[in-house]
Amino acid sequence: MEYPLEDIGYAEAAFNRFYDIGVTDSGGVTRLGYSKEEEKMHAAFSELGRGLGMEVYTDAVGNTFVSNGGVSSGYYLIGSHLDSVVDGGRYDGVAGILAGLLALRWAKRDGLALSLRVAAFRCEESSSFGFSTLGSSLVAKGGVGAEVWALRDKDKRALGEVFAERGYNPKPDRISGVREYLEVHIEQGRVLEEYKQKIGIVTTIAGPRRFNLYIQGRAEHSGATPMVMRNDALCAAAELILEIEKIGMAESVRNSVATVGVIENQPNALNVIPGEVKLQVDTRGIEIASLDEMEQRIKQAGKTVCGRRGATFLKEKIGETKPVAMDHKMQDKLARAAHSLGISHRRMISGAGHDAMQMAEVCDAALLFIPCRDGVSHSKKEFAHMESVCDGARVIYKYLQEECGQDDTH
Amino acid sequence: MEYPLEDIGYAEAAFNRFYDIGVTDSGGVTRLGYSKEEEKMHAAFSELGRGLGMEVYTDAVGNTFVSNGGVSSGYYLIGSHLDSVVDGGRYDGVAGILAGLLALRWAKRDGLALSLRVAAFRCEESSSFGFSTLGSSLVAKGGVGAEVWALRDKDKRALGEVFAERGYNPKPDRISGVREYLEVHIEQGRVLEEYKQKIGIVTTIAGPRRFNLYIQGRAEHSGATPMVMRNDALCAAAELILEIEKIGMAESVRNSVATVGVIENQPNALNVIPGEVKLQVDTRGIEIASLDEMEQRIKQAGKTVCGRRGATFLKEKIGETKPVAMDHKMQDKLARAAHSLGISHRRMISGAGHDAMQMAEVCDAALLFIPCRDGVSHSKKEFAHMESVCDGARVIYKYLQEECGQDDTH
Repeated sequence: MEYPLEDIGYAEAAFNRFYDIGVTDSGGVTRLGYSKEEEKMHAAFSELGRGLGMEVYTDAVGNTFVSNGGVSSGYYLIGSHLDSVVDGGRYDGVAGILAGLLALRWAKRDGLALSLRVAAFRCEESSSFGFSTLGSSLVAKGGVGAEVWALRDKDKRALGEVFAERGYNPKPDRISGVREYLEVHIEQGRVLEEYKQKIGIVTTIAGPRRFNLYIQGRAEHSGATPMVMRNDALCAAAELILEIEKIGMAESVRNSVATVGVIENQPNALNVIPGEVKLQVDTRGIEIASLDEMEQRIKQAGKTVCGRRGATFLKEKIGETKPVAMDHKMQDKLARAAHSLGISHRRMISGAGHDAMQMAEVCDAALLFIPCRDGVSHSKKEFAHMESVCDGARVIYKYLQEECGQDDTH
Repeated sequence: MEYPLEDIGYAEAAFNRFYDIGVTDSGGVTRLGYSKEEEKMHAAFSELGRGLGMEVYTDAVGNTFVSNGGVSSGYYLIGSHLDSVVDGGRYDGVAGILAGLLALRWAKRDGLALSLRVAAFRCEESSSFGFSTLGSSLVAKGGVGAEVWALRDKDKRALGEVFAERGYNPKPDRISGVREYLEVHIEQGRVLEEYKQKIGIVTTIAGPRRFNLYIQGRAEHSGATPMVMRNDALCAAAELILEIEKIGMAESVRNSVATVGVIENQPNALNVIPGEVKLQVDTRGIEIASLDEMEQRIKQAGKTVCGRRGATFLKEKIGETKPVAMDHKMQDKLARAAHSLGISHRRMISGAGHDAMQMAEVCDAALLFIPCRDGVSHSKKEFAHMESVCDGARVIYKYLQEECGQDDTH
């Protein structure tokens, strides 16, 4: 939809306030969780909040909140993050913060009788300490596993040390008073672009289930071993890669995906038949039954393929996260809000994890996607239109207006 | 066949004379071409030659010859090498030298009226300077390409510098006076073991033809990209690997092989769909027509697979060596010799290159294989029985006896 120059201008000005923070030689940005660059991002966010005449506060783990005051409980929370991956883009996380600021700004202008806060959660990306959605996890659960505090960043600082240094509390109180949680994020995929739709209303955040697969064949001289006498581990791996693709394809009716992202071949020499291959597989789905089915079928395929080829097969699970459903009623209301604004939308799943996943433990939560160009993310090439950021903000704002029974005055 | 304890004992004593040279922590040996360790190997070989009462001389590039004197032209030459790969085994090359020494010893004992020499060629393995069969190439051709002299070993010494330092001649006279060339080598494969045969009579040394294949798909978020929207470069590569296996299998009727030995996947991350894959392919064959056919079919398969998957494909030839035929009459006579000794044999191709390949430019040449355990080579696990070394020597010696019209007196 068309936005007043004022709105686009505000969003762009706010975006530019962050622009140079953590800029890299390549033109991307590196703003790792709990780094100086993330600190600068939060400082800029605080300034923007104060610029809107809002209250600004920080919680016990460094998450920054901009609040329109009002009641201390029963507030609506719009959240996202300000950290990035190494040499990442400028929209992942930031787009959600901009949407929140826009909503706050409109609420102020319209005198919306509703308590609203915007949260910038710390360390959403795993790039800093190998642990994602850290800031939101801490306040949603009141802590994280003890092993997390020993994780180290690229400067070898343990997370526990960083917290001690900054006076953060590794066992904070759980966040309270949140009535509902809303988040806008770039899609990081091409679904919206492909279907030419402006908003994705996330139904479920998929749970990744990950495996190492080991294939042991026989490394032999590539010239001296006839084709019929081989136990080529790479050929076995190739069959398995295609089987895993088929399994993902079959389960795509349940919105699942299966990807072999990593392959390590030994000895990886031109004149030696591959003797050993390790694959790393990422399966994601919104239904446990589908994740179970994929795991079972991958194991069976590995055994069958390797059995036929005289190779050995080993499967090792390296991670499992359960899918998290977004609130149904909120999805319906957001869909109605989008519809009434004439902003095209579709229900879709989120393949990637987001802070909304953690906040869903605290309250009803919703996640909206906006398109990003070519689906590219975690790259300096990441790009989203300010109109798309406004679309996300507008749907949320319309939703909030409906919540307090106020008509859309625009 | 059964050998007198004397023969086995001599072969083992000679083998042990080399045993410790270049020994590594892992228990293998590193005896790189034109290194101090190879120098020690040649010194030990010279001593063994003198121990048999033979003449010993070195040519202009450091190849060592042990000669029973006699005529200065029209001599039979039994050759092999004494260098190894990094952390290699003790039989690759050495077995052929032992076979030569055994034949010389028998010839002396029997007063065989035939001029016979055993050559240890320098730097047969590519592990030292990235160039194989160097010593035999130099004397077979009278030189090598100018670019070869700039090749450097792991200590960054250029081959040209090494030659200058040692006073070797980079443009030596071509070897002369050789009537026929014979070589015994471990098979480095499992064909003889599989067929339970003692001697392989090589018909042709296969020519490797090698390619880089580049596949470009689209790197995207593994969670955010539905299965049907992907251009997964690794899945395309997997299809191609299996096609190349099929192509090798189809051409195995012409004794060809096709191997994908190397795979490099980008970005090779668990949460990213592979965007780019490079494969390295080694095809080998004894018929140019078969090598041509494989090259053509690999190119076509790459185009078809990648075309279907919306990926781009590029093929780059990185090397081509023509197959080299061993002399037919020599093969027949060696087969008769083996048969008359009751030593089982089969005609077979050599997938790997050997000094015989170079010597075939100078004179009629023959190459015999003996089994090595499990086909393992270029490893400390490399093993061949001394009986097998004796088998190889015995077939050659019988051949030589027939050549000078002398009956086998054993």
